[in-house]
Amino acid sequence: MEHYLDDLRSLKLEVYELFRQHPDLLPPVLEALTKEQQRDLVRKCMHCILDAGYSPMFFFNTDFKKYFYLAELLSMIDLSTTVKLGVQYSLWGGSVMNLGTERHRKQYFEDIDKLRLPGCFAMTELRHGSNVAALQTEAVLDVATDEWVINTPDDGALKWWIGNAAEDGKMGTVFARLKVPAPDGSGAVDDHGVHAFIVPLRDMASHELLPGVDIRDCGYKVGLNGIDNGMLRFTNVRVARENLLDRFATVERGGKYSSPFTASKRFAATLGELTGGRVGLTTASVGVLKGALTIAVRYGAQRQQFGPPDGSEIAVLDYQSQQQKLMPMLATCYALHFTKNFLIEQYVEMKRTKDEELVADVHSLSAGLKAYTTGYTASALSICRECCGGHGYAAVNRFGALRSDHDIFQTFEGDNTVLLQQVAAMLLKRYKEQFSGAPISATYNYLRQWAADTLPPNPLVSHETDMRHLRDPAFLVRSLRYRTARLLHTAALRLRKHTRRLGSFHAWNKCLPHLLALSRAHIESVMLDCFLEGVNKCVDAECRKALKAMADLFALQRIQSDIIFRNDDYVAPEKQKAIQRLIEILCSELRSVAVPLVDAFSIPDHILRAPIGLASGQSDPYSAYLQSMGYAASA
Amino acid sequence: MEHYLDDLRSLKLEVYELFRQHPDLLPPVLEALTKEQQRDLVRKCMHCILDAGYSPMFFFNTDFKKYFYLAELLSMIDLSTTVKLGVQYSLWGGSVMNLGTERHRKQYFEDIDKLRLPGCFAMTELRHGSNVAALQTEAVLDVATDEWVINTPDDGALKWWIGNAAEDGKMGTVFARLKVPAPDGSGAVDDHGVHAFIVPLRDMASHELLPGVDIRDCGYKVGLNGIDNGMLRFTNVRVARENLLDRFATVERGGKYSSPFTASKRFAATLGELTGGRVGLTTASVGVLKGALTIAVRYGAQRQQFGPPDGSEIAVLDYQSQQQKLMPMLATCYALHFTKNFLIEQYVEMKRTKDEELVADVHSLSAGLKAYTTGYTASALSICRECCGGHGYAAVNRFGALRSDHDIFQTFEGDNTVLLQQVAAMLLKRYKEQFSGAPISATYNYLRQWAADTLPPNPLVSHETDMRHLRDPAFLVRSLRYRTARLLHTAALRLRKHTRRLGSFHAWNKCLPHLLALSRAHIESVMLDCFLEGVNKCVDAECRKALKAMADLFALQRIQSDIIFRNDDYVAPEKQKAIQRLIEILCSELRSVAVPLVDAFSIPDHILRAPIGLASGQSDPYSAYLQSMGYAASA
Repeated sequence: MEHYLDDLRSLKLEVYELFRQHPDLLPPVLEALTKEQQRDLVRKCMHCILDAGYSPMFFFNTDFKKYFYLAELLSMIDLSTTVKLGVQYSLWGGSVMNLGTERHRKQYFEDIDKLRLPGCFAMTELRHGSNVAALQTEAVLDVATDEWVINTPDDGALKWWIGNAAEDGKMGTVFARLKVPAPDGSGAVDDHGVHAFIVPLRDMASHELLPGVDIRDCGYKVGLNGIDNGMLRFTNVRVARENLLDRFATVERGGKYSSPFTASKRFAATLGELTGGRVGLTTASVGVLKGALTIAVRYGAQRQQFGPPDGSEIAVLDYQSQQQKLMPMLATCYALHFTKNFLIEQYVEMKRTKDEELVADVHSLSAGLKAYTTGYTASALSICRECCGGHGYAAVNRFGALRSDHDIFQTFEGDNTVLLQQVAAMLLKRYKEQFSGAPISATYNYLRQWAADTLPPNPLVSHETDMRHLRDPAFLVRSLRYRTARLLHTAALRLRKHTRRLGSFHAWNKCLPHLLALSRAHIESVMLDCFLEGVNKCVDAECRKALKAMADLFALQRIQSDIIFRNDDYVAPEKQKAIQRLIEILCSELRSVAVPLVDAFSIPDHILRAPIGLASGQSDPYSAYLQSMGYAASA
Repeated sequence: MEHYLDDLRSLKLEVYELFRQHPDLLPPVLEALTKEQQRDLVRKCMHCILDAGYSPMFFFNTDFKKYFYLAELLSMIDLSTTVKLGVQYSLWGGSVMNLGTERHRKQYFEDIDKLRLPGCFAMTELRHGSNVAALQTEAVLDVATDEWVINTPDDGALKWWIGNAAEDGKMGTVFARLKVPAPDGSGAVDDHGVHAFIVPLRDMASHELLPGVDIRDCGYKVGLNGIDNGMLRFTNVRVARENLLDRFATVERGGKYSSPFTASKRFAATLGELTGGRVGLTTASVGVLKGALTIAVRYGAQRQQFGPPDGSEIAVLDYQSQQQKLMPMLATCYALHFTKNFLIEQYVEMKRTKDEELVADVHSLSAGLKAYTTGYTASALSICRECCGGHGYAAVNRFGALRSDHDIFQTFEGDNTVLLQQVAAMLLKRYKEQFSGAPISATYNYLRQWAADTLPPNPLVSHETDMRHLRDPAFLVRSLRYRTARLLHTAALRLRKHTRRLGSFHAWNKCLPHLLALSRAHIESVMLDCFLEGVNKCVDAECRKALKAMADLFALQRIQSDIIFRNDDYVAPEKQKAIQRLIEILCSELRSVAVPLVDAFSIPDHILRAPIGLASGQSDPYSAYLQSMGYAASA
């Protein structure tokens, strides 16, 4: 199975081997380190990767797949390092490469790549997180000196949470309102909205803050304390006109502004270039989920508690309650694995073809999958800790630091609730296009079917409880698509109705929970398709059987837990009960192969570290744990 | 409202005022402290309380209500202190007072109370958590010297997670298998199972470990790092025969063992004495939930993001998605508030009357409510953090430390999954008694009705969508009772069927998810009853209206989200939809009073601390936050 899952296996083995040679970079307990110590650790990890000859900037720019793969495999090494790498290469480097033009790329590529030029991505402000269009930092062109004058107009506009800023950043991409003299010569100033500027922050030699730049440390966070987040205030900071990242808009000497795009298209194009970051977060989050499940499943198979009066204790994983927590999670983890691979493929294809439809698709899928994955992993970490009971609470077993570090994945690079709305907006757009006869890209192809799909099946089918039927991919796929189509259709109707009376903003708000359900339903539809393709492509019969059981469990659990199927009589009560029974059967079937299924994630012991979850502990789960606590095992 | 909620308001004001005078005991960022610093902080907090003249041992033993109230109000001061207090007074002190006899109480009360005798509760072992009956530590009577010889037979029996042990504990209540010579003089040894013994651990003067006692530090945990948890190994540790806590069983000189109870009754009685700890955890968990909601609701009402094209930004709490996360949580918090008050009253009554039925009831309700509350609060903390976005991730805003510290509440003093099974077992016992004509205690009275309750209503009622009907307490109460009765009836049938084939242990396991759902349903039934009583007793019309809206929301959300109501056609699809609409209406109605509703929890700013959630920040939510980050607010 592990070979089937890992198509870049050699990179994984290399990087894991690299860290095996640096055990000092893999401390057992992150909680025991101060933020200063964690930041040092991150710097060492970064240099370890660079010194070994890897070029993350090249990966992010050209060899995309390797970049995302790296994000996944670093996630169980250290999440602060994963994120710091993301700040340097995907946010800072990525903004220069993708929002700038050739001269910016030439000037900065090498220095960014080699970390000679650590940089920041200064977008978020104290009062402005999701609503990027409302940012208040200003960049006003001084025509006389041909410079931008950057200012923080008030405390609400302080740049906040800027990674790499508190200690390391030499420069930053600063998002600010671009202001130039009005062309009519009236002396008025035109505000062209938010643009990106390269702004030096510290002296290259002395590392002193430059004049007008004030930076404070954001201090301790819930997690990711290896990242030096900072608050930035700009007071008349001057940078050359050429420091505007001018791929989507240019300003000539004298202040003439031009852009091939309308303001809203330009804004969308600018934000669209940030898609890569979300793909990276998604793969890292899947990596964390794999790690957490590896620990919880292995421990659950070893830890014994209670048993029949006449026998010995049984493994906690033999309890239905534990199985029904962990097996659907394992199935979802595999579903996410195949879906993030699909997302990466789509991303690579988008970068190759620059096809506009594909750009929109990848933007929407990356937003939706980032939100779904990080939300899922966040909950999963809590459940895994709980499943491991008291020993799951020992810091060495890693659930605490993983949860604290991962938590913000739900918020940064797009708040999950906001991102899911982008998916809903895209679905509604496609829905309208369908009626207008426009072509629909492949991912949304099934929406064509909505008229057919939104019909409930005939009563024979909704009462059908035969196991072959319930495990038929056609039934499972159609059910999840039905849900999406149904939610989409009703959302469109409700929005139309409310918009008349409330206007589009308030109508959207009124339907918000419905729209979020729609987005999640869509993502799960896509996940099932990807999962089933993963099943079909698998040639090993035994692996294929386990994958199919997980895909079925994934889909059936969604059908069972969403009341829409019952409300629409898509599933009759006896079918609902049959699905419940089948879920139990699948959970117990998967329990017997659960350990090999997490082994297939192939996270070696020195990377996983959690003493209760090691592969080498399968004979005695407590021995490494005792050693980590200073007891040499004597049993 | 605050006067209605707080019947021990003066104690609250006193303790909060006490800590206002010791700002050094209220550090802004727990994450910045090492475990050693956190432990020091806890010691200082404990002494602060004692020096002010409070007597927690007296509270726990006599003035119960004050003890539980103290646990709640300390929870937002420092959870490690709350738990350390629990270890000293409810676990160590409580075990001596309740498992011992008069001479133990006389000998130890004063020293425990004054903290001259810090102690431990050494129950859990490395391999034995929930299954207390399988503990392996041994206490063998040496008849010659009239002493118990305590031994740790192997590594699996190392006492683990023992609070107060790594640094402070002088003595401990050690749970061990009691072994005495068989009375037949054959030289064989009788194992009477797990009993509790007082075992000195450190020298009273020098604080050195006593001979045969080996203690190691459990190191960093996910949270509660202010507690010095330790691992204990005993090697031929000798204590006097009188150190057996002998309320439920005595051993005479020479080894004659006697107990008025059967082994299983004695074991149940021993564990039954631990109920007080669970009540304390429940109240502390409710306290944390109140604190987290105070922060999230106040911030949500202030934080603005996006808005209609022609207007200014709106508060995030005005988004339906945010309302539907936070308002049901606020309603549940109030439900838990009234229910924990009911539990405390029952506990006080039980201590007064020693009524056997009531003992069983309180045991079951405390187990169930501890599990429900701590599980709910754990999830709520994650949701509150997420609702506060990036600023929720700043350590100063407390969600991280609260979640990490509170997390283990789901596991210690009874794993939630195990505790819920005790509720199910109790319900099944009552169910059987009902047929045997035995009297049923008040809490379970409604089970009498099961035959009537399990009948679905007539189709007119299941289709009724009128708002007056949907908000009729009779409808809401009957619906939740219906669910409990239905789950109970079907669980009993399924258990009977499976037991024939599988035996009772495996039959129970096969029905486990069903049994857990039953327990949760029962707890929610009880919660609704308590909540509605809280509504009825409220004389202020405006408060009463808000309470009623929350009680309705609490119940309707359960009806709406549990598929059982649809599967049984208890609720027709159009009624389901009407309930969904009503939930939206109630959420938006409550949004307008949400801030006063959290203000009513009356957690003063110096205790709450989170800069984004202060009462004083309602005019400018960012000003305290900026100050905490080293920026003097300049706006």
